[in-house]
Amino acid sequence: MARYGAIEAGGTKFLVAVGEDPLRLEQVTRIETSQDPAETMAAVIDYFRRAGPLAALGVATFGPVDFATGRITTTPKLSWRNYPLREVLERELGVRVGFDTDVNGAALAEARCGAGRGVEDLVYFTVGTGIGGGAITGGRLVHGLMHSEMGHLLVRRAPEELAEFSGVCPYHGDCLEGMASGPAIEARWGHRAEALDAHHPAWRLEADYLAQACVNVACVLSPRVVVLGGGVMEQAHLLEMIR
Amino acid sequence: MARYGAIEAGGTKFLVAVGEDPLRLEQVTRIETSQDPAETMAAVIDYFRRAGPLAALGVATFGPVDFATGRITTTPKLSWRNYPLREVLERELGVRVGFDTDVNGAALAEARCGAGRGVEDLVYFTVGTGIGGGAITGGRLVHGLMHSEMGHLLVRRAPEELAEFSGVCPYHGDCLEGMASGPAIEARWGHRAEALDAHHPAWRLEADYLAQACVNVACVLSPRVVVLGGGVMEQAHLLEMIR
Repeated sequence: MARYGAIEAGGTKFLVAVGEDPLRLEQVTRIETSQDPAETMAAVIDYFRRAGPLAALGVATFGPVDFATGRITTTPKLSWRNYPLREVLERELGVRVGFDTDVNGAALAEARCGAGRGVEDLVYFTVGTGIGGGAITGGRLVHGLMHSEMGHLLVRRAPEELAEFSGVCPYHGDCLEGMASGPAIEARWGHRAEALDAHHPAWRLEADYLAQACVNVACVLSPRVVVLGGGVMEQAHLLEMIR
Repeated sequence: MARYGAIEAGGTKFLVAVGEDPLRLEQVTRIETSQDPAETMAAVIDYFRRAGPLAALGVATFGPVDFATGRITTTPKLSWRNYPLREVLERELGVRVGFDTDVNGAALAEARCGAGRGVEDLVYFTVGTGIGGGAITGGRLVHGLMHSEMGHLLVRRAPEELAEFSGVCPYHGDCLEGMASGPAIEARWGHRAEALDAHHPAWRLEADYLAQACVNVACVLSPRVVVLGGGVMEQAHLLEMIR
């Protein structure tokens, strides 16, 4: 069978792997994301050269990205700005590269082998340090002028919201990410999400904002499945509250 | 050249036409939407039989609709509920029928021959008696479990909103349609939109809600163009306020 390569490129780490089957990866390896892209990429390229011939390589990366050029664009990680990630991989490894955002990669994975297996209309949200979303409609990933930025959906203040809390998004303050990301929970309550028990009022607020996001993507895309992932969703009680 | 038929099916009237070119329709004819679907459809079928052979027929209809069966589903127009619109047209006219919502039809028209000519990622809103939206992404109309229902996007109360106004949507009260449709304007101010001059405070509220809708569809779909249509948008000053 053909062997494929995979990269999840994040602001903290790159995860690299090879395999014949997306559910049975070989040699998953973590490479720290350096301030110097050349350093990180040398390690990534070395990994794949040692892994042997690949039929193709799939990249799900932090963004924002430009699909036309395969570059990371206006990231706050200044040394990675305008880094031609796709081109470097194609040139150094001589392999076809599939290139998309991290959340579109996760949406595709959930639709092909995960919680929405076989579904052609699916939205995936990650709720963690940031909030992002990817979408598949009619079996194809949504791209446009750039890509979805669902973390910045507008939300209404929840009725129980703390009067003094104005959100943590550096761009908008009180957008979805500003009100419902892990750092928003920590800023509001002074404790990290995982330290708050299931009865803490934090979770009613969190469920309100995430439910609003689900409603709005339902109005726009009418997905069959919405998948909620990311560290904050590891709270087992939260999904039912959102529902 | 091949001749095509077109139907815009609305709750008040059906507009029917034939033509070789979507920008030069022949014989545009209005047929009242009867309480009795059989009566309306007899007139529609008679029109197309007289119009002569068609290569295909395109239908943009009020909804909600079910794409699998080509039916109108839970419309408040009770006599039209579950009406098999596509099947009746196919059977009676022996022609291939393209079938979609009115707003998806408008989105397609704007992307092919209108304000977004040549654009593959476009959202169309109509703002009138109701609010609806249709979307094209990657050149294809968005369908999902059903279809977009962008009129029911959640919006934040505008800072200048009247304290006593709670919106007119029979389902949600203060969703986009509840706050920004023509009937919302009339309920809030006691006058129809077209009677309010350009300096009336109505327009700041209207622009706020429609801008929120544009932001949210941009976060989800990243369209290259958003087209705003419908009766309320005939106010020439409103577009720049939204922008």
